Amino acid sequence: MPVGTQATVKAMTPGELREIGFGLILGNTYHLHLRPGEELIARAGGLHRFSGWDGAMLTDSGGFQVFSLSGLRRIGSDGVQFQSHIDGSKHEFTPESVMRIERDIGADIIMAFDECAPYPCTYEYAVEAMERTHRWAERCKVAYEGFDRLAAGGWHQALFGIVQGGVHRDLREQSANFLVGLDLPGYAVGGLAVGEAPEQRNESIAWTTALLPLDKPRYLMGVGTPIDILDAVERGIDMFDCVLPTRNARNAQVFTSAGVLNLRNARFAEDFGPIDPECDCPVCARHTRSYIKHLFKANEILGPRLTTYHNLYFYHRLMADIRAAIRAGNFREFRDEFTRRYRQDPETVEGDVLKNE
Amino acid sequence: MPVGTQATVKAMTPGELREIGFGLILGNTYHLHLRPGEELIARAGGLHRFSGWDGAMLTDSGGFQVFSLSGLRRIGSDGVQFQSHIDGSKHEFTPESVMRIERDIGADIIMAFDECAPYPCTYEYAVEAMERTHRWAERCKVAYEGFDRLAAGGWHQALFGIVQGGVHRDLREQSANFLVGLDLPGYAVGGLAVGEAPEQRNESIAWTTALLPLDKPRYLMGVGTPIDILDAVERGIDMFDCVLPTRNARNAQVFTSAGVLNLRNARFAEDFGPIDPECDCPVCARHTRSYIKHLFKANEILGPRLTTYHNLYFYHRLMADIRAAIRAGNFREFRDEFTRRYRQDPETVEGDVLKNE
Repeated sequence: MPVGTQATVKAMTPGELREIGFGLILGNTYHLHLRPGEELIARAGGLHRFSGWDGAMLTDSGGFQVFSLSGLRRIGSDGVQFQSHIDGSKHEFTPESVMRIERDIGADIIMAFDECAPYPCTYEYAVEAMERTHRWAERCKVAYEGFDRLAAGGWHQALFGIVQGGVHRDLREQSANFLVGLDLPGYAVGGLAVGEAPEQRNESIAWTTALLPLDKPRYLMGVGTPIDILDAVERGIDMFDCVLPTRNARNAQVFTSAGVLNLRNARFAEDFGPIDPECDCPVCARHTRSYIKHLFKANEILGPRLTTYHNLYFYHRLMADIRAAIRAGNFREFRDEFTRRYRQDPETVEGDVLKNE
Repeated sequence: MPVGTQATVKAMTPGELREIGFGLILGNTYHLHLRPGEELIARAGGLHRFSGWDGAMLTDSGGFQVFSLSGLRRIGSDGVQFQSHIDGSKHEFTPESVMRIERDIGADIIMAFDECAPYPCTYEYAVEAMERTHRWAERCKVAYEGFDRLAAGGWHQALFGIVQGGVHRDLREQSANFLVGLDLPGYAVGGLAVGEAPEQRNESIAWTTALLPLDKPRYLMGVGTPIDILDAVERGIDMFDCVLPTRNARNAQVFTSAGVLNLRNARFAEDFGPIDPECDCPVCARHTRSYIKHLFKANEILGPRLTTYHNLYFYHRLMADIRAAIRAGNFREFRDEFTRRYRQDPETVEGDVLKNE
């Protein structure tokens, strides 16, 4: 899923997302609640109509943003009081209010309100955050069923639960078992990509997916680089969202089959080749690294437009290739070959994993 | 002509310009000389290939920008010494150097180096600037013919002369006659839209076009609003460039059949209609005023993207309608009807005429 924080995938039109082939995009409940507000979105006919996107949508629960973006906050058993990062105004998220907000926004998939514990944190805090997440998930389910599982606009919504538990095997297992017991339409693995080592993340994913039902989607939140995605798919993950392709694009970082390049680099000034010679996207068909470097140097909007389009195309292609490889039964070979080529260019720089726009 | 100052029409792709129907866009010699430099553009195969635009291009002479944008400058009979507005570096434009730069950039239409006198200025200064423009035009023609009228890339270029003379009838006539005597492929009316009253501008246009040959294009530089364009077409102008549709778009100002609207205005917060109900552009087909207002409030790139597309579509449609009305012999009726409707909305705000991006 491309990330459409404020009712737009930054620098893209809905038509371009369709053209690339995306069917599902993400919106951020925290941001949309603050601006323009879920009441306005509901009056516009829901987020799909408000933003002109005719595909499917998912909204996160706002939990991650409340903990990472907002000002002074107070966590209680009932919910979280916080201050807007935009104007300092005071707000409160409870499981019930988040369900109401997500109902009004009207995405097809909505996420239960959770607490994403920081990394590192004590084992005791990880337990506390996990248990709060479980109690909140139960309350979310009650609220969701109280709305007959329907968005304000009348269509069906699927509530996904979020497994927490940090990097601790016993907690991940306890959390997965608890949430599976709620019999929700899908499950997410939360609380990762917050600073832990890749090995810790991969283990935590594997402990969790081992307990999630095979017939329901498994969604790893906020991950990641192409290599991270391959690692997670190998461990049973089906769905991803990440700002990496879009945010890095706005810093002139592009994904190519040979790794990540930063087009601000002086060596691209007179490089009249495409971003990625292996890519068949319209940006690579028409524009050169030299031109895009110029656009970034001149602060032209077309710069981030072109790199965002290309990066999303690259990620979409990666996911399509992964699905094809799984169907063909040669995922491991695909992963090894992709990884070998992706790391061959010694001058590439791997982008930082940044979770939210 | 949409204005593509830095080798891009701000916020637009070349494909979108084609989709709207544009065949000719403008690049600014002053900006392109400073960044990325004409040598790089020539090595890229010329401005068309560098920017990925497969239509026709025109470059201005840099004269206007040297006088309006650059730092400390010294005007001599030979040319102008100036400092870059980007980094303060020292440069000199002479008729010969400008012809060489425009040859290297490689547009299809190139403008002679001229001096655009400020408004107001003394009659004596207007004479001086005009005479300098004439001497420079002669030297431009010599340089242009020395290059066999060919761009660095080998294709034909058409050199247009620029009529100056301020708002003085005798000077406009003297300047038009002088430039027509050089027998150039086309002529521009320069030195207007710099602060003079609309009546002065319209008179100056009429004095000039009365003396320009009917079988060569007449281009009014840096104009203007839809009403300005109608006024100028009535007086014999064929070609225009202006940043108004693109610059105003980036300030959330949109052109509609009922006048200009500023979508930042609070009254659009829950206006779920299109920018212009009379418009058949893809932005009006898919997006609402409410959504676009939200995008601007949230500083999203998609905001200026949508308004720029719409405004350019509006201007392109205006020019197409003007051509159709002229062919049908009912230009005056078209102008009156357009003007009546364009001014009917009392809340519209007419955008400032701003000459350069």
